[in-house]
Amino acid sequence: MASLKSSAIRDLLALTQQPHMISLAGGLPAPDSFPVESLRAVTDRAFAERPLALLQYSTTEGSPELREWVAEQATADRGGPVHADQVLITHGSQQALDLVAKVFIDPGVTVAIDEPGYVGAIQALSVFEPRFLPIPVDRHGMDVAVLADLLAAGERPRLVYTVVNFQNPSGSTLSLERRIHLGELADRYGFLVIEDDPYRALRFRGEQLPSVATFGKNVIACGTFSKLVVPGMRIGYVVAPSWLREDLAKVKQGADLHTSSFGQVLLSELVRQPGWIAEHTDVLVRIYGQRADALCDALERHVGDRLTFERPDGGMFLWASLTGDHTARELFTAALDAGVAFVPGDAFYTGEPDPRTLRLSFSTASPVELDEGARRLRVALDAVEGV
Amino acid sequence: MASLKSSAIRDLLALTQQPHMISLAGGLPAPDSFPVESLRAVTDRAFAERPLALLQYSTTEGSPELREWVAEQATADRGGPVHADQVLITHGSQQALDLVAKVFIDPGVTVAIDEPGYVGAIQALSVFEPRFLPIPVDRHGMDVAVLADLLAAGERPRLVYTVVNFQNPSGSTLSLERRIHLGELADRYGFLVIEDDPYRALRFRGEQLPSVATFGKNVIACGTFSKLVVPGMRIGYVVAPSWLREDLAKVKQGADLHTSSFGQVLLSELVRQPGWIAEHTDVLVRIYGQRADALCDALERHVGDRLTFERPDGGMFLWASLTGDHTARELFTAALDAGVAFVPGDAFYTGEPDPRTLRLSFSTASPVELDEGARRLRVALDAVEGV
Repeated sequence: MASLKSSAIRDLLALTQQPHMISLAGGLPAPDSFPVESLRAVTDRAFAERPLALLQYSTTEGSPELREWVAEQATADRGGPVHADQVLITHGSQQALDLVAKVFIDPGVTVAIDEPGYVGAIQALSVFEPRFLPIPVDRHGMDVAVLADLLAAGERPRLVYTVVNFQNPSGSTLSLERRIHLGELADRYGFLVIEDDPYRALRFRGEQLPSVATFGKNVIACGTFSKLVVPGMRIGYVVAPSWLREDLAKVKQGADLHTSSFGQVLLSELVRQPGWIAEHTDVLVRIYGQRADALCDALERHVGDRLTFERPDGGMFLWASLTGDHTARELFTAALDAGVAFVPGDAFYTGEPDPRTLRLSFSTASPVELDEGARRLRVALDAVEGV
Repeated sequence: MASLKSSAIRDLLALTQQPHMISLAGGLPAPDSFPVESLRAVTDRAFAERPLALLQYSTTEGSPELREWVAEQATADRGGPVHADQVLITHGSQQALDLVAKVFIDPGVTVAIDEPGYVGAIQALSVFEPRFLPIPVDRHGMDVAVLADLLAAGERPRLVYTVVNFQNPSGSTLSLERRIHLGELADRYGFLVIEDDPYRALRFRGEQLPSVATFGKNVIACGTFSKLVVPGMRIGYVVAPSWLREDLAKVKQGADLHTSSFGQVLLSELVRQPGWIAEHTDVLVRIYGQRADALCDALERHVGDRLTFERPDGGMFLWASLTGDHTARELFTAALDAGVAFVPGDAFYTGEPDPRTLRLSFSTASPVELDEGARRLRVALDAVEGV
């Protein structure tokens, strides 16, 4: 079912790649944020200074210096020590989900998950045939009180999956209170939280919140360089409790021996340059913040009477609801005719979808295109409503 | 069990990395064969000409030009058309095993496998809890007549895994007669052959044989750039029957979305240069052939009375048997004391191991080191035998 949904999204994305289409459907990071020249420079140097580190087999767990860097970041986020040996480098954070699923999910095992939730996670986990327990997401992230009620009523999920910052698709961020509560529940009931955090660096408003792992022992934190630097190298990581290390390394070795040496060396050379991350984060924040505001302003201008949404504080997505009687699927067909694409929200549900929801991405279009996209949405809405 | 074995090998490999140790234990490709300057040149050009192809997300199935190149190679090997859409690019051929296992193996499903067999395959498949049916390997590869007898007696494996050229660990190559027989059996009984072929390019004697896929429809052929070019990029591929395409793409997407764009672009730029592959294959053949002969000569010189083995025609490994009363495990401890390492053969069995077998790798040591390694083996043998 989930994979059908995923195929449906792939088909949609194919449609949206027609010429003249303004696509608010995709989830690609902004290519103008890619640090091409910096990467080129570290690549040159690595070829000259340590070609074998780039090209030979390396260790299953990952490059020691990249693991060390990830541990330093995690230590700062949590305000408590994280050791490099808790870090496993993966082929994207998508692979982290696959590995955790392999260790924990047998058919029928209960997995609580954001509703609406990240399609890639639904698909990665579905391969192992869990029973999904959808937990509603509101503007403050997963509604942990609902999870607590279900736990009190006897539900026993083995895993709880949530995207904590600027969630895909809703754009919402788990509040501090809910992070504390979720960490405590995990320890009390013995389930494992998969804290997925691909968009953390893309915060253009407000303060960073501490990781859920700050508040509980049973947390696997997944991260990625896909949105922080570039996605094409497929380098992500997982920071796991020490007792999980051996199991994860074993399934990682079975899955693909180890993560690309090439990608690991280049990224670790890049991000460990003094000051580089701070400078690059400024670039990300400027690009994504400007586009988010441009899309919000344009939506208010053109379709403010037909669409409700929250202004996101970061990330790549905006989640909206149609206020009229029509579904996002109906709008979608008219929108393609009008030359604008988005993803109907029903693709993101493991339970009963809300058919009025839709996901709009602002990550790759320019402010001018975003305005034109919103104008075309107006045309599509008028067409659907027979105006 | 298999993963215990794999951990055991990792522990051994740690021991063998001590200074002054001559290691015939590892399975690393010859680093002096790596085309560092050619790779550096294509990397420079790709950064200049199409940075987004390197750095952005790409398609689940893989880079179209790399898939096209793999299809051309497979077409030549089989003497019949293979289409690019049958090719899926993976993170090493190790990942191909993981994906195929995900599609086909439920707990208890029978998987026939080389005995002795490739440890990485045993481990990748073991995660899905199959029942292994070991099929003996002799100097002509998997003994397909034994498999035929087991099929006739009612065994119904869903998968049959074999390394067809210069098998790891035995060094043997599946004969033409057996290739034909295996392809026919797969069609007759409806099982799928996983034809793993990482060492094909490393043939320094004799003629290439056609792929098993030439002789049957139910064959998945796995290949890799790890031994042909470099392993550190983790780029492999699978050539699958058309009916498997969708299933494999689905599990690939769940596993890690897609294979590194970076690695795919660089390798496809490299291998598609006119004449490059032929020239590079000459380098590989010279390096590996020289080392194989050096090791065989040295073994004959120093321990010819205590060890039997076949001279390999390609690959990276030599498989030997002790002629005396001692086991390879006993020899192993004495060998480490004498400053030489190998892998005791019992690590490669899913059934009852032959304790007198051992695997010697000639891929990374120089002829001088190989001679000294054989001399130290003599010292170790004398010590074990109390001479």
